[in-house]
Amino acid sequence: MDYLDELLARQIPNEEETRKLAAISSAIINKIDNICRNENIDATCVEVGSVSKNTNLKSSDIDIFITFDRSYPVDYIEKKGLEIGHRVLENGTEKYAEHPYVSGYIDGIKVDIVPAFKIGKGEKIVSTVDRTPLHTVYVNNNTDEKTIHDIRLLKVFLKSINVYGSEIAKSGFSGYLCEVLIIHFKSFGRFIEYMANLRGKLIIPEETIDKFNEPVIIIDPVDPLRNAGAAVSQENLSRLKLASRIYMKGRTDLFNRIPVVKRKRETNIKIFVVEKPDIIDDIIYPQAVRLKNRIWDIFQENGFIPTASEIYVGKDIEILIEYKLEELPGIEIHKGPPVESNEAIKFIDVWNSNPRLMRGPYIMDDRIYVDVKTRIRNMEGIIRKELKNEDIGKNLNQFKDEIKILSIDENSPLEVEKRFYSKYLF
Amino acid sequence: MDYLDELLARQIPNEEETRKLAAISSAIINKIDNICRNENIDATCVEVGSVSKNTNLKSSDIDIFITFDRSYPVDYIEKKGLEIGHRVLENGTEKYAEHPYVSGYIDGIKVDIVPAFKIGKGEKIVSTVDRTPLHTVYVNNNTDEKTIHDIRLLKVFLKSINVYGSEIAKSGFSGYLCEVLIIHFKSFGRFIEYMANLRGKLIIPEETIDKFNEPVIIIDPVDPLRNAGAAVSQENLSRLKLASRIYMKGRTDLFNRIPVVKRKRETNIKIFVVEKPDIIDDIIYPQAVRLKNRIWDIFQENGFIPTASEIYVGKDIEILIEYKLEELPGIEIHKGPPVESNEAIKFIDVWNSNPRLMRGPYIMDDRIYVDVKTRIRNMEGIIRKELKNEDIGKNLNQFKDEIKILSIDENSPLEVEKRFYSKYLF
Repeated sequence: MDYLDELLARQIPNEEETRKLAAISSAIINKIDNICRNENIDATCVEVGSVSKNTNLKSSDIDIFITFDRSYPVDYIEKKGLEIGHRVLENGTEKYAEHPYVSGYIDGIKVDIVPAFKIGKGEKIVSTVDRTPLHTVYVNNNTDEKTIHDIRLLKVFLKSINVYGSEIAKSGFSGYLCEVLIIHFKSFGRFIEYMANLRGKLIIPEETIDKFNEPVIIIDPVDPLRNAGAAVSQENLSRLKLASRIYMKGRTDLFNRIPVVKRKRETNIKIFVVEKPDIIDDIIYPQAVRLKNRIWDIFQENGFIPTASEIYVGKDIEILIEYKLEELPGIEIHKGPPVESNEAIKFIDVWNSNPRLMRGPYIMDDRIYVDVKTRIRNMEGIIRKELKNEDIGKNLNQFKDEIKILSIDENSPLEVEKRFYSKYLF
Repeated sequence: MDYLDELLARQIPNEEETRKLAAISSAIINKIDNICRNENIDATCVEVGSVSKNTNLKSSDIDIFITFDRSYPVDYIEKKGLEIGHRVLENGTEKYAEHPYVSGYIDGIKVDIVPAFKIGKGEKIVSTVDRTPLHTVYVNNNTDEKTIHDIRLLKVFLKSINVYGSEIAKSGFSGYLCEVLIIHFKSFGRFIEYMANLRGKLIIPEETIDKFNEPVIIIDPVDPLRNAGAAVSQENLSRLKLASRIYMKGRTDLFNRIPVVKRKRETNIKIFVVEKPDIIDDIIYPQAVRLKNRIWDIFQENGFIPTASEIYVGKDIEILIEYKLEELPGIEIHKGPPVESNEAIKFIDVWNSNPRLMRGPYIMDDRIYVDVKTRIRNMEGIIRKELKNEDIGKNLNQFKDEIKILSIDENSPLEVEKRFYSKYLF
């Protein structure tokens, strides 16, 4: 069996699962439609998500949208949406995306019941969830058995190379992107061949004028102003290009390879651990990345020379930095004004009377320099001092003073260490 | 007494010295002229150098040129020059500049007797010494008591700020440059004022079109194609600018200041000591500087991050390098090809089978990277390996394998260390 067939066989839902999902969906929709009819609510219940488009893999969720008429105020649909959700999902819990919604389990299947506004194609949306039912309509109108098979194939392929999923921490390809791409290229094979030979950005349709900044530009067929590929990172585009090339060359062994994990790097590594507030990852993750970048910059600006980094957001936020210099030299070379400037003599007088002066003032090329005693030489001291006055993100600032700075521990490595050491292509 | 008057009083020759120099010169010239007449040699004896122009400071040498007619072959004038030199200077020794010449002492005064070709203004020279007699004529034709005083003043000023002398190791202003500058500016005061306000290069005459690369461009009045200021370094130009500014502001205390010498820098310093062959400094010094630059570059290219250096050429060649990293990290990050290139899979295969692979291959942005074990981590090993195949200069290559690499020694510092620690403006 071919590499992909094998992947697919393990992940395609069987008839039993498909029948079960359909039964649960229609029961829920019936129930909600009845409620709306009885209470005279102008709303329609529609199923969205991969199950509704037949493009689902094993163990998919069911997503049910209650689409209200646009004349209702937002407050009303949020209140009513939660109320109906709780009536349908007995042990449901409230969650929050763009609106609050109810999430629960029926017969072991996860079900989300989400309120939205009913809009037609081309109409202005209120929140991005309003667009979702249009995606279902578009996909169902443009797929057949063959394209559905290839969409599933693409999904398992992207999963296997670790670029599937639109959560911010993943920055991969969403299910909807898989559908749009296969509808556009007509087959999995043609898409992979295209990717194997693509140079630069992925732009679909190819003739689109690039007015976006992102590496992946896929115009949403239901909204020509929207880049449906905006969330995909450069790395994930690169992974898909390389994976396509590997697949075309028949080198699928490279997908399965277990990466070398050698821990004796003999480098300087520190791990910054910050408590994670109880907020969803899509909000915390970008703040954590910004903190990582800020710490990187502090290493850089102060001359510790960072060389690699890793981030893991789980129970806590873990940021790993590998760097060259464990301690700053005792001397900083301080570049002064040109000899021919009016500040030259002032600079000399100022430093001659400064106890930090270690050598000079002296001349190099056309400027005056001094060698000055370094104020703080150890990295922890500098990082803590620099972060003190820094905004490290709305939800992280409160934990700023309690950042732990840990050394690597071979015996009980943190998650970020495991991730760091096992970095591989996919 | 003013700062400069005091300097000058200590260095101007007294009447007795002047009379003595004149007596020795004319005795030598007489002797040589007699020899030439008796042997029918078509040559004239002329005095050159500062004594001949009355611009000498205390303890000057006497320079006597035997200028031969241009019809003689070079071999002849070199042989004849040495022969006459030895006859005049009984205990003279042979030295080598552009021609061999004889150097000796008469009555405690150093005398050089040098052969050259007799040329007229505008005629093509054979070697640069042929030009020297023209300089004497030019200066004597363009000076009076006042300009001679100011030339001497400029010389002592430049000496006091350590930028006087045309030896390559000094790269300062020659005596002839002092003469040309004072003749051009008419007085010491006007020159210093000009220098205190000068920005950028020193170009004399000011309207000269800059077709030279050097920071100081002073067209030789006897040869408009020659930059008489070519040997002056950027640092020495900067020193003179700053010193002029300091003098104009009446801040002469800055000339006398004893620099701070703090030796506890808490940095990494190594000193490379190379045996010095028995060759004049003007030839060895540029090779030593090139070696210093090459060692600096090896530090730089290999990531040891050099921050300061010093050189001293005395009994040995001593090269000091201050640097940040004592040992390279155990890992090198190796940047591979873009994922979309034909070399991508090859790069992965090559590294996957390489025992030096420590992590990866992995993707960053649009490229593949690997982390690789560093081959040689210690600095000495790398320097010795890199120098092995390096041409470090005609006269130094023989000592390449015997370079000593020393740590600093607080108790018996080398000359280069003393120079390094006491670096000051002048």
